[in-house]
Amino acid sequence: MQKRVRVVTPITTRGFRKPNECKMLQAPDVAIDTVEIDTGPASIECEFDEALAVPGTVAKIVEAERAGIDAVVIDCMGDPGLRPARECVSIPVVGPAETAMHIASMLGHSFSVITVLDSIRPMLENQAKVYGVPDKLASVRSVDIPVLDLETDLDRVKRVLTEQAIIAVEQDGADVIIFGCTGMLGCAEAVRAGLLSKGLDVPVIDPVPAAVRFAVALVDAGLSQSKRTYRRPPTKPIVGYEDLAPAMRDAAE
Amino acid sequence: MQKRVRVVTPITTRGFRKPNECKMLQAPDVAIDTVEIDTGPASIECEFDEALAVPGTVAKIVEAERAGIDAVVIDCMGDPGLRPARECVSIPVVGPAETAMHIASMLGHSFSVITVLDSIRPMLENQAKVYGVPDKLASVRSVDIPVLDLETDLDRVKRVLTEQAIIAVEQDGADVIIFGCTGMLGCAEAVRAGLLSKGLDVPVIDPVPAAVRFAVALVDAGLSQSKRTYRRPPTKPIVGYEDLAPAMRDAAE
Amino acid sequence: MQKRVRVVTPITTRGFRKPNECKMLQAPDVAIDTVEIDTGPASIECEFDEALAVPGTVAKIVEAERAGIDAVVIDCMGDPGLRPARECVSIPVVGPAETAMHIASMLGHSFSVITVLDSIRPMLENQAKVYGVPDKLASVRSVDIPVLDLETDLDRVKRVLTEQAIIAVEQDGADVIIFGCTGMLGCAEAVRAGLLSKGLDVPVIDPVPAAVRFAVALVDAGLSQSKRTYRRPPTKPIVGYEDLAPAMRDAAE
Amino acid sequence: MQKRVRVVTPITTRGFRKPNECKMLQAPDVAIDTVEIDTGPASIECEFDEALAVPGTVAKIVEAERAGIDAVVIDCMGDPGLRPARECVSIPVVGPAETAMHIASMLGHSFSVITVLDSIRPMLENQAKVYGVPDKLASVRSVDIPVLDLETDLDRVKRVLTEQAIIAVEQDGADVIIFGCTGMLGCAEAVRAGLLSKGLDVPVIDPVPAAVRFAVALVDAGLSQSKRTYRRPPTKPIVGYEDLAPAMRDAAE
Amino acid sequence: MQKRVRVVTPITTRGFRKPNECKMLQAPDVAIDTVEIDTGPASIECEFDEALAVPGTVAKIVEAERAGIDAVVIDCMGDPGLRPARECVSIPVVGPAETAMHIASMLGHSFSVITVLDSIRPMLENQAKVYGVPDKLASVRSVDIPVLDLETDLDRVKRVLTEQAIIAVEQDGADVIIFGCTGMLGCAEAVRAGLLSKGLDVPVIDPVPAAVRFAVALVDAGLSQSKRTYRRPPTKPIVGYEDLAPAMRDAAE
Amino acid sequence: MQKRVRVVTPITTRGFRKPNECKMLQAPDVAIDTVEIDTGPASIECEFDEALAVPGTVAKIVEAERAGIDAVVIDCMGDPGLRPARECVSIPVVGPAETAMHIASMLGHSFSVITVLDSIRPMLENQAKVYGVPDKLASVRSVDIPVLDLETDLDRVKRVLTEQAIIAVEQDGADVIIFGCTGMLGCAEAVRAGLLSKGLDVPVIDPVPAAVRFAVALVDAGLSQSKRTYRRPPTKPIVGYEDLAPAMRDAAE
Repeated sequence: MQKRVRVVTPITTRGFRKPNECKMLQAPDVAIDTVEIDTGPASIECEFDEALAVPGTVAKIVEAERAGIDAVVIDCMGDPGLRPARECVSIPVVGPAETAMHIASMLGHSFSVITVLDSIRPMLENQAKVYGVPDKLASVRSVDIPVLDLETDLDRVKRVLTEQAIIAVEQDGADVIIFGCTGMLGCAEAVRAGLLSKGLDVPVIDPVPAAVRFAVALVDAGLSQSKRTYRRPPTKPIVGYEDLAPAMRDAAE
Repeated sequence: MQKRVRVVTPITTRGFRKPNECKMLQAPDVAIDTVEIDTGPASIECEFDEALAVPGTVAKIVEAERAGIDAVVIDCMGDPGLRPARECVSIPVVGPAETAMHIASMLGHSFSVITVLDSIRPMLENQAKVYGVPDKLASVRSVDIPVLDLETDLDRVKRVLTEQAIIAVEQDGADVIIFGCTGMLGCAEAVRAGLLSKGLDVPVIDPVPAAVRFAVALVDAGLSQSKRTYRRPPTKPIVGYEDLAPAMRDAAE
Repeated sequence: MQKRVRVVTPITTRGFRKPNECKMLQAPDVAIDTVEIDTGPASIECEFDEALAVPGTVAKIVEAERAGIDAVVIDCMGDPGLRPARECVSIPVVGPAETAMHIASMLGHSFSVITVLDSIRPMLENQAKVYGVPDKLASVRSVDIPVLDLETDLDRVKRVLTEQAIIAVEQDGADVIIFGCTGMLGCAEAVRAGLLSKGLDVPVIDPVPAAVRFAVALVDAGLSQSKRTYRRPPTKPIVGYEDLAPAMRDAAE
Repeated sequence: MQKRVRVVTPITTRGFRKPNECKMLQAPDVAIDTVEIDTGPASIECEFDEALAVPGTVAKIVEAERAGIDAVVIDCMGDPGLRPARECVSIPVVGPAETAMHIASMLGHSFSVITVLDSIRPMLENQAKVYGVPDKLASVRSVDIPVLDLETDLDRVKRVLTEQAIIAVEQDGADVIIFGCTGMLGCAEAVRAGLLSKGLDVPVIDPVPAAVRFAVALVDAGLSQSKRTYRRPPTKPIVGYEDLAPAMRDAAE
Repeated sequence: MQKRVRVVTPITTRGFRKPNECKMLQAPDVAIDTVEIDTGPASIECEFDEALAVPGTVAKIVEAERAGIDAVVIDCMGDPGLRPARECVSIPVVGPAETAMHIASMLGHSFSVITVLDSIRPMLENQAKVYGVPDKLASVRSVDIPVLDLETDLDRVKRVLTEQAIIAVEQDGADVIIFGCTGMLGCAEAVRAGLLSKGLDVPVIDPVPAAVRFAVALVDAGLSQSKRTYRRPPTKPIVGYEDLAPAMRDAAE
Repeated sequence: MQKRVRVVTPITTRGFRKPNECKMLQAPDVAIDTVEIDTGPASIECEFDEALAVPGTVAKIVEAERAGIDAVVIDCMGDPGLRPARECVSIPVVGPAETAMHIASMLGHSFSVITVLDSIRPMLENQAKVYGVPDKLASVRSVDIPVLDLETDLDRVKRVLTEQAIIAVEQDGADVIIFGCTGMLGCAEAVRAGLLSKGLDVPVIDPVPAAVRFAVALVDAGLSQSKRTYRRPPTKPIVGYEDLAPAMRDAAE
């Protein structure tokens, strides 16, 4: 039976996910669709952006469950809304950062994350702490390119990603590379080839495709987040967020 | 010169903070005022509630800076909005959980947090990890009373808080007690007396008054959050959050 | 295209895996087969047993790669041979303990492992350290039943597993349960039902089925272990292990 | 009502603290005085120096409590006598290293300490472990100038401090700078300006002024060290230390 | 060639070490002698006592080196003076707590310390942090008997030590037992027998004999403390400590 | 009474240990002999080599106990067979890596390991985690020379070891140096001299001699591994390993 996985892109920039990118996410026996949020920032590059993206993201995840979707993947390495959304629904909610960090921890001795801007390093290091794998994180490096500029010069992105990945392996001791922004989707093959050309045979994790496969694995295994950690929110009055109603209110009921 | 500290209560329940409570927060040479947020939940008891409280909290903190306030204290042990608000302003933004955990780490060998509901334990343990003091946290215990019920039977709250504090000291090895909900404001004296009556001479930290004093200390010392960790958000389009504009948009500019 | 996953049971007891158990491992689009090792112990209950199982396990994994298998799952919670086998082959080698611990870390705040004998606790705690998730491990508990006795009274196994799982959740603060022996295959549904009947809504991870799904996810994502961590063994003379040749020698070439 | 805070400088060099330095420590509504110890070393640059400073420091702190002082700050980044003095008195005893490390942990993601000599690094790293914030310490760097030479060429001290602070931020990832010797009092403004001129907007903590403000905050909040961690010493015979009697003996009674 | 090891008992109570106890410390090819300090407390039961013991202990260790002693063992589980004495001399200075914790870490998965008074727990936990083995410490338990009362009812001491050791193994998961006070010298055989009678086959480390053997091993291996960690103190004026001169002053030269 | 310590070299290359090397291991009152294993690899340079060495190593250790040997030292920094052998015998089994890491942790603030090949770094870092001293490990460096080539140009080995040791101290902050391969036996004096010529007074631990002395210290102290951690293996059928019988089978009985 075909599983349905929805990728929620937690920004309000329309057309960020191109049709060819969605194809990269396809998996056997799985129907993937993508949706952007209705309220929030144009892109996510700091904790303020992330905070504004969370309510809209949770609303879309609640809608997904109601629509019969089997699992949701959040399309941002900040994993915005991961924890509140897990409280609101029973289907698996998968964050690409959490998933990529744990997969990387299994594939090698330590990993590095190559992200867009150096300013995001504290967020990623805090995630490693909360996700329980701080000792596996070798380093966070950046390509110094804002999120919405990633697609304008993809060749430069691949080149700088490869340069930073090589430094991460040779100087920081990384054994696995994770892309630190889901806007880098589709660059893994080039970066891995660049590493191999230097004799560095290390896996490169493209977080959203990896998270989609992991979401499918959870569905096949009949597993979802613990409702002991993520208990259903108690019902209570909420002021504002009219645009996101009724999803938000239902979530809390 | 008198300093001005604003306490932002990140819920939409009006009248939660009573005038006599505000008096407890008074400090020499400091003018304290309190404000509730305009959009968000009636109370905060899970990550979903917290997520809905964050945008309104950040808006109030941006307004506070613009109004010439010297420092802001967030009035909730989830420290909602602490990190995004620190990005948006230059004045010190102080979270009661972060502050209480660090003060407790200085006052004794280990500390326990007594909170409202057992379901909040993972949030508090994650905070200890991100704040950098996981090894000082002896345990999280709860009184099993919802936030908005705290004021209806304050005597029972004090009694159960004392019972749990005694267990935390005697069984979990806590040397300092922190209240895990800012709705417990004003119970410290009774709990400390209850502990002393058992021969347990341990400090009891009432987080909001402690955070107010710490905020004043920061102002006096000319210190505020690092703008290297909390860089100013880049300017970008935001969809929604009209109620919170213009504070939100200004913050990002 | 159908993927092929082989489950290597690292003991010499024939018929340990029943046909109905293999059915539990089936996944869409995946052909699963199982194989036992040719030299080694009848069961694995200590580090000595594990040491004797490793050479035969590595030999079977090298054979699997040569036979065109896409991924291998080791059928023992000691993950015997995981690291040397990863050195010898390029296809993903998946250990159920490593996989279950990382999946559990993603599904909830902390996890407990319920294993066969209390004597295995140090092994599991050391695994959590090496796998990088020591802070997520709430406790190790045991049912006190030797491995080869598990199948003789499956009802008792389920009952004691459930009892220990309830204690792990209520007293140790576990949010996810992992079975600590792959001989407990098939008990997850009953244990989860037992937990739910106490109001404890926590996931129960049956490690081998979870590892099979994760192995499939890796194959679909084009990922395998880092050859930077797990470099190919240098060629050198080996004395003994004639039974396992030629697989062993080829592995090292 | 005015609070009284005493700064105990744990060395026997007279005139180390200049009148203008004491002015830097002034805070509203607080009377500050400073006192040196009667027995001990001329300066503190190793554990041996520190050991000799402890008995005299404890004696001065016991005298301070008896004289009605509200809180004591130890004027050395080794925090000599912090723990035994806390056992002997009930008023807050504040160490500048402990306080600066915890404040820095709150102000940013990680901090570096710039101290006098490289040989002091192990002491500071051990302090971070015992104080519970080892993961927040990015690095320890030094200006390579002995303590008693600091005042002879303050301009050079400021210049080298700034150089090392820039390296700490840019190479070690520090988000907050702490001075590693209280003899660097008064250099914070210059170092912060130097960092800002490089575009590095990070707080610089001058430990003694910060500790004085924190001590005042504790007094205002009615908090002091836990007598559960720091129990009053049992009475027993002491041989020697006649110069420090009667303070020492009283302390133990 | 016979090695000479001196045991420095850092208290001023004369006759604390009985002749029969010294015999327990004998080792082949080693001459052991014991010496008490000249200034300091009658016994050590808190950080204040320890602080007063340090200067006299360092003086005795400096004298030992000058007298041609090959290695020194400090006879107290607080390891008072360990770090300053290591700065002052080149011969190995061995602390029984540090040594016992590392030996225990090698002999088993985790260890518990059974000490005299519960108030000493924070000191021992801090030692485990500074010595680098916090994760191996299962628990600290106490017999609730002051140091100088230990010898008055040795049978009771052995009985309570055994009771607490059994609880440490069965409830706290300890695999090795360490005595937490050197005044418990000579009780290991009885406690180990008591544990064995319960089927608990765990080593019991009597810290001073273990430290003496370890000191001999260091001498035989030509090893001593790193003078990079423990650099020789710079020469400087010291006020007071006339009784301890000239040892103290020479140490610093 | 003379103690007997056996050094088990876990490789099948005959003549690896030269007579002059055995002399380096001599200790007063101790008879040392060495033995190689009968089945296994020519040298150990990866986890695969190590896995093949373990059964033969355990067999030799069981034989040693039966022959009345007092303690065994494994002659490889992978400590192959350490844990299973400890299960099979009651005499102390000592691993040079575990021992050297704990001795180094006692001698200085942090240590570095200089090993043969960079590929061994993950193994050594995992050992530090399992042995409980991850925070004391400053770095792992390598001389980039295969094990069996070490003896062909010992002068070059000493020169490169010294170069890497200097970098470890000056750049990585190491206070103690450990050789990362037992094939470097006999190089400590030269490396220490090279460090001293740079003004770096740090201990250099030659792991096998240090382990032999530590083994003797354990025998003298009447201590051995905890049979609670290392319980005797249950008796069960084993297929294969005929060459190693009867030692292996007896071990399990």
